[in-house]
Amino acid sequence: MITVNEYFDGKVKSMAINSGSLPATIGVMLAGDYTFGTDKKEIMTVVQGELTVTLPGESAARTFRNGQVFEVPANSSFDVTVAIDTAYLCQYCD
Amino acid sequence: MITVNEYFDGKVKSMAINSGSLPATIGVMLAGDYTFGTDKKEIMTVVQGELTVTLPGESAARTFRNGQVFEVPANSSFDVTVAIDTAYLCQYCD
Repeated sequence: MITVNEYFDGKVKSMAINSGSLPATIGVMLAGDYTFGTDKKEIMTVVQGELTVTLPGESAARTFRNGQVFEVPANSSFDVTVAIDTAYLCQYCD
Repeated sequence: MITVNEYFDGKVKSMAINSGSLPATIGVMLAGDYTFGTDKKEIMTVVQGELTVTLPGESAARTFRNGQVFEVPANSSFDVTVAIDTAYLCQYCD
């Protein structure tokens, strides 16, 4: 069974995937501004589109596009500005 | 609004994404065997996992893993064997 998770009134949706390497979700973010909290360390990959991200401890935002990766520490949060609908992969590290 | 499409009794789910380059969907395929038909030419990228694919006109199956890409002509079909849950990106070409 593939579970679909919804956030921010359906403007962000994700699907869990367990393919053995790392537990992960793939998802779509519609254009908008979001703040995400983390429990575990997260490795985020932009699959298609772009994410402008302010990471914990950083004041300047950085934009990540197709194939680019950024990491977010566990037990923290990060702000994301999405200019165009973006598909992403999020992997969770223990 | 993010539309979630379901196929094969929910064993394959996809979400549409329109981020300007090519119309696309991202999705998850659970382990199993599937045959997909195409209207437009499709560019398939394995995001996480692996797809063993028999493409139109080919007798031998080939396995594609993380980051690898294959193309399927328009108005054709292809067989896929999924050994582990796999996330993919499918881009549609005019």
